[in-house]
Amino acid sequence: MKNSTQYQTVRVPLGERSYPIYIGKNLLSSLGRFFHRHRLPKTVLIITDRNVARLYLKIAQRSLVQAGFAVRAIVVPPGEKEKNLRRADAVYSELLRFRIERRSTIVALGGGVVGDLAGFIAATYQRGVNFVQVPTTLLAQVDSSVGGKVGVNHAQGKNMVGAFYQPAFVVADIGTLRTLPDREIVCGVGEVVKYGIITNRKFFSFVDRNLPNILLKEGRVLAHLVSGCCRMKALVVSQDEREDNLRAILNFGHTVGHALEHAGSYRSLKHGEAILLGMIAETFVAYRLGMISSKDAARIEGAILRIPMPRSIGFSFAPSRLIAAMRLDKKVASGKIRLVLPTSVGKVTLPIVVDEKIILEALVYLRAVLLSKALVV
Amino acid sequence: MKNSTQYQTVRVPLGERSYPIYIGKNLLSSLGRFFHRHRLPKTVLIITDRNVARLYLKIAQRSLVQAGFAVRAIVVPPGEKEKNLRRADAVYSELLRFRIERRSTIVALGGGVVGDLAGFIAATYQRGVNFVQVPTTLLAQVDSSVGGKVGVNHAQGKNMVGAFYQPAFVVADIGTLRTLPDREIVCGVGEVVKYGIITNRKFFSFVDRNLPNILLKEGRVLAHLVSGCCRMKALVVSQDEREDNLRAILNFGHTVGHALEHAGSYRSLKHGEAILLGMIAETFVAYRLGMISSKDAARIEGAILRIPMPRSIGFSFAPSRLIAAMRLDKKVASGKIRLVLPTSVGKVTLPIVVDEKIILEALVYLRAVLLSKALVV
Repeated sequence: MKNSTQYQTVRVPLGERSYPIYIGKNLLSSLGRFFHRHRLPKTVLIITDRNVARLYLKIAQRSLVQAGFAVRAIVVPPGEKEKNLRRADAVYSELLRFRIERRSTIVALGGGVVGDLAGFIAATYQRGVNFVQVPTTLLAQVDSSVGGKVGVNHAQGKNMVGAFYQPAFVVADIGTLRTLPDREIVCGVGEVVKYGIITNRKFFSFVDRNLPNILLKEGRVLAHLVSGCCRMKALVVSQDEREDNLRAILNFGHTVGHALEHAGSYRSLKHGEAILLGMIAETFVAYRLGMISSKDAARIEGAILRIPMPRSIGFSFAPSRLIAAMRLDKKVASGKIRLVLPTSVGKVTLPIVVDEKIILEALVYLRAVLLSKALVV
Repeated sequence: MKNSTQYQTVRVPLGERSYPIYIGKNLLSSLGRFFHRHRLPKTVLIITDRNVARLYLKIAQRSLVQAGFAVRAIVVPPGEKEKNLRRADAVYSELLRFRIERRSTIVALGGGVVGDLAGFIAATYQRGVNFVQVPTTLLAQVDSSVGGKVGVNHAQGKNMVGAFYQPAFVVADIGTLRTLPDREIVCGVGEVVKYGIITNRKFFSFVDRNLPNILLKEGRVLAHLVSGCCRMKALVVSQDEREDNLRAILNFGHTVGHALEHAGSYRSLKHGEAILLGMIAETFVAYRLGMISSKDAARIEGAILRIPMPRSIGFSFAPSRLIAAMRLDKKVASGKIRLVLPTSVGKVTLPIVVDEKIILEALVYLRAVLLSKALVV
C-alpha cells in the first residue's frame, strides 16, 4: 500500500470463511492492491448502479486494471425495486454473454441494494464465485456489507430469497460518503443507532452527541462509526453466522421496519428510515410490556426523533396490512410474530412472541409520533 | 425402525455438514421415522413432480403425518425444462402463500430435476431451510441426490445458477425404481458406468456383466449399484466439496453431454443419455491424444453401446453449436474448453485443455457411431 493510504482493519472471525474489513480514506483508488494481496483470479466483474457508476466506477476500474486485472462492469438501475429475481436473471445473462467463468470475482460497488443483489449473484452464479464488497453508503459500510447476508426481494416479502455468502474482504472507503445525499446519511444513522441500542450504551451516547458532526460528514467521526459498528457486527456474526440464535438481535427495528417498507412498496420509505420508525414502534412494545424503563425508552425515542427525517415521511398504512406483512417475517415461528425488544439502552432480548394487539397499539403510537413530528420539523 | 425395514447406511463425511444416505427397500413408508431421528422441525414441505406424486406422494405424506409432522406439497410439472428461475419463483410464491417458515424442511421427492430445483429452493428460501433428498430414480439415487449440488438452468446454459447445499440426509428407496420407465433406468446406468470408468475397474466390470439384471430391475443388483456409487461419490466429495479440484472428475462425459442436452433444448436427449454419448466422445478424445490404450477405449465404448438406447436418439446438431455450448461449461478456464479424460478403465485425469479441432473430430466420430448403431438396434 502507498503510505498515503491509511486504513484500519476489522476482522470477521468465521473459521475458514474469516475475512478482513478495510476501513479508511481513498481506498477505492487502491482497490487493485487489495485484490493482489488476496490473490484473486484475473477476471473481475463489477456490479454497480447508475448513480454510483457515475461517481466511482472509473476509479475502481482504473485501479484494478493498473494492478493487472481484466475488468468488466454491469450497471443496474438504482433502487430497492431492482433487487428481485428478474433483475438477477438479467445479470446472469450478462455474465454469460461476457463469458465470466467460475474462477473470477464479483465486486459489489454501491449501497445495500447493490451489495445484496451482487452478493446473491456471486453466491449462485455457477454455484458461487469469489465475492468482494465495496460499500459506498454509510448504511452498507456499517451494516449490510458485513456478515454475508445476500439476497433479493420477492413480490410477497423482503429478502425472502437469498443465502449466507461471505465476501473475501470488504473495502469501506470513507471518502465515498462525502458524495452521499443527506437522506442516505440518515439511513445509515438508523443502523448505527441500532448498534448502540442493542449492544453498547457508550456508542449510543457517542452517536447521539455527535449527530451534527455525522450529518456534516466529518471523516474522523464517520470512520469511528464504521469501525465501531463493524466490530460489533463481527462479534455477533462470528458467534452465530446463520442466525440460529444470537444474530437475530441485529433485527431490532426490522420486523416493523420491513413491514413499513413493504407496505410502501419500497418507494415511500428507504430501508434506514423504515428501521428508525421500526425501532420507535418496537421500543414502545418493550415499554408497554414493562420490559424497559420509561427513561431508557424515552432516551431511545428522543435520539431517533432528533435525526432529521424528511417531512414527506408519513404513515398512511393500514395497521392490519402491516401486521399481515409482519407475519411473513423470517423470525416468525409457528405463525406468531416475534420481536427483538430493548430492555435498556445497550441491551435487547432474543426474538420473543408479542401479542398482535400490542403491536397494533405500537403502530397507532408511531403514527401519532410522526404526526406531531411533522408539525415540528 | 420396523424390523421389516432393512437398509444400509453410507456416510458422506463433510465435517459439520456430514450426513447419511439410507439405502434399502420400502423406506418411503418409514420416512417419518428418519425425520424423527434427525430431529427435524414440525413443518415439512414436499416438492415433487406430477409423475412421482401420482405414485409416491401419498405414501410419503402418510408416513410423515403419522410421525406427527405437518405436511404440505407442491407438485411441479415434470421435465428438465421446468428447472429454471421462473419455476423457482412460482414455488417461492407457493411457500409464502403456505406461510412456510425458516424452521421447516423442504423434501425433494423425485428424480434429478426435482432434486436440483427443490435443493436450490431449500438453499435460497429465507436464506436456507433444512433439506432432505428422497430420490426416486436410479440416476438421482446414484448421483444427483448426493454431494449437495443444487441449481437451475439458465436460457444460456445448464446448471448456471445454483449452490452447494448439503441435505440433512438422503433416503434412497430401491423399491421406487420398480416403477421407473426403462428409459430412466438407462439414464441411471449412464452415471453408474461413469463411476466405474473414473474410479473403479471392478465396479465397471460388474455393471457391464450385470446389465441384463439391471435392466430387469433386480433389487439386489440395484442396491449394490446405488450403495457402490454413493460410496465412491462420498469419497470424492468429502475431499473436495466445492469442486476446486478432484471433484471435477465426476464431470467425465458431462462437457460434451451438457452441450448435447443444450443443443437439443433438453427435450431430445435425457441427461443420462447425453452423458453416455458424451463419454463416447470424450473417450475418443483421450484415445486420439494417445492417453488411453485402444483396448481400454474399446472396452468403454463397447460397454456403453451394449446399453439399449432408444432408436430415436440421433445426432442432428451442428458441431459448431456444440462447441459454442461447451465454451459456457463451468470447467472452462481462460476461454479454453477442458475435458476430464480416461487414461484406463478406472482412472481419469483432472480437466485438461483440449484443442477444439480434436473435440470436433470426436463429435464427427460420435455421429458415425450413432448412425451405425441405429442400423443395428
